[in-house]
Amino acid sequence: MQDSERRAWLRLARTENVGPVTFRNLIARFGSATAALEELPRLASRGGGKNFVLPDETEALRELDALAMLGGRMIAACEPEYPRGLKALEAPPPILSMLGHPHLLQKEMIAIVGARNASALARKFADMLARELGFAGLVVVSGMARGIDSSAHEAALAVGTVAVVAGGVDIIYPPENEKLYAAIKNQGVIVSEMRLGEAPQARHFPRRNRIISGLARGVVVVEAAEKSGSLITAQCALDQGREIFAVPGSPLDPRARGANRLIREGATLTESAEDILSVLSPLLGGGFREPEAPPLSAGRDRALRPPARQ
Amino acid sequence: MQDSERRAWLRLARTENVGPVTFRNLIARFGSATAALEELPRLASRGGGKNFVLPDETEALRELDALAMLGGRMIAACEPEYPRGLKALEAPPPILSMLGHPHLLQKEMIAIVGARNASALARKFADMLARELGFAGLVVVSGMARGIDSSAHEAALAVGTVAVVAGGVDIIYPPENEKLYAAIKNQGVIVSEMRLGEAPQARHFPRRNRIISGLARGVVVVEAAEKSGSLITAQCALDQGREIFAVPGSPLDPRARGANRLIREGATLTESAEDILSVLSPLLGGGFREPEAPPLSAGRDRALRPPARQ
Repeated sequence: MQDSERRAWLRLARTENVGPVTFRNLIARFGSATAALEELPRLASRGGGKNFVLPDETEALRELDALAMLGGRMIAACEPEYPRGLKALEAPPPILSMLGHPHLLQKEMIAIVGARNASALARKFADMLARELGFAGLVVVSGMARGIDSSAHEAALAVGTVAVVAGGVDIIYPPENEKLYAAIKNQGVIVSEMRLGEAPQARHFPRRNRIISGLARGVVVVEAAEKSGSLITAQCALDQGREIFAVPGSPLDPRARGANRLIREGATLTESAEDILSVLSPLLGGGFREPEAPPLSAGRDRALRPPARQ
Repeated sequence: MQDSERRAWLRLARTENVGPVTFRNLIARFGSATAALEELPRLASRGGGKNFVLPDETEALRELDALAMLGGRMIAACEPEYPRGLKALEAPPPILSMLGHPHLLQKEMIAIVGARNASALARKFADMLARELGFAGLVVVSGMARGIDSSAHEAALAVGTVAVVAGGVDIIYPPENEKLYAAIKNQGVIVSEMRLGEAPQARHFPRRNRIISGLARGVVVVEAAEKSGSLITAQCALDQGREIFAVPGSPLDPRARGANRLIREGATLTESAEDILSVLSPLLGGGFREPEAPPLSAGRDRALRPPARQ
């Protein structure tokens, strides 16, 4: 990939109102980002409703330079090093920024997500799970949030862990995770779809969640209240044809409600790393499944079912 | 049913080596208990291997009298008041002794069972469930054990509850349940397959569990360790074609392991009385299903599945 086309990818990805779907459509229509950028003002003036505001080229150069100064790099969805799981998505994030050890993104991954206000027991369980899955050769992906995410990252640090952040890769959020952020930068990799320096905003989190599940073969939900971000990640995983694992909990604990519902709807009830490995082992090394793919074995119902109470 | 035939049923049921299956076969072969009793010595002398020791008639009369003195009664499987759920079994207990209000056995029932060393949270949940299911018109059946059983009985007392005991109906076990025993005798019904005065022994409990699940439309397992009696009751329920409900819990709590496994194998994950009622409502008032019956609705897999990890 030529430097000029890489910059064009970055400029196109950073254009207002160009999300992953529009990006994919533009590349499909015009053959390259360079060509798409040339056509974009004409498309906008035709009054298609969308107002495309292109960042100029120096802005793109400035971001690339700043990222390089931090020791980071950028990778486009068309490049061979782009993570396989994301490449298999219908509309991959066009550009990822990374700090740390991008080679980890070539490995097989498992996402562990859950409540920010998780119980001590659930954090302990996430810790145990992350250690055992890491030991089994899987890289643990999470969102560097408080609670379950932090526990999973910390436990997986020794074997490398992937943190997908909602703002720019240079933004430490939440602030109390400064130490964890530094450790992951050192021993793992920090990934983001957002521009450098961008503060995380509420609307970024669903995009972050989509990357977490997209990178991984499966998503483990450890504790999740109803309407929580973890359930959004599980929904992304379902849309992406990923395996969904959920850790059960007492019906009297509201933090267990989301995970219990996932189990009810067909997620694999998870009590140990073994429960996860027995489902994932047959998939590892192979291609990522399409969401529409039939169950791998007749004995198991892999798709989430509607709740029995309907 | 004539008094003499009733006494013959009792004598035959109290005969050593005559269990429910042999009892059913003898009645099928000879047409009545009176006739079977006459033939039994001849059968035994033929050296079929089994040694049938018949109690004499005065012994049977003494048990009937003693039970009547306690205000109780006996009911044979061929009588119209015999509980429908048990009647539907392949080999119903031939004789039931009862203290309290036998009319409760004509109602639709739900069994709630679980660990003797249950957590406070689980006992609270059993209490809530029993209240709500009782309020919805179901009679709660359990085994009067410590822990979950006691919580369920206590909460259901006001609307009537059925305690199935492993020894004779006149034996209070465990001894600390003296108050609960008296309350159930007063407001509910105490049922047993065993002879009056018989102390509960380990081998009686599986037979007790079979009656608990047989009486009910479904069995709710609230907390159950692996290899616990509650799992035996769940297995009976499965063999009898009953619905199985299990309450999830943390994988780090060994008391949750049995119920979690049941969910993994296809039991309905249960977080509320509503979860139970939505499954049972279509069944209530109808006949008891055969274990071989196909799923009631295509969308739900009602049979327990083998664990995914196999």
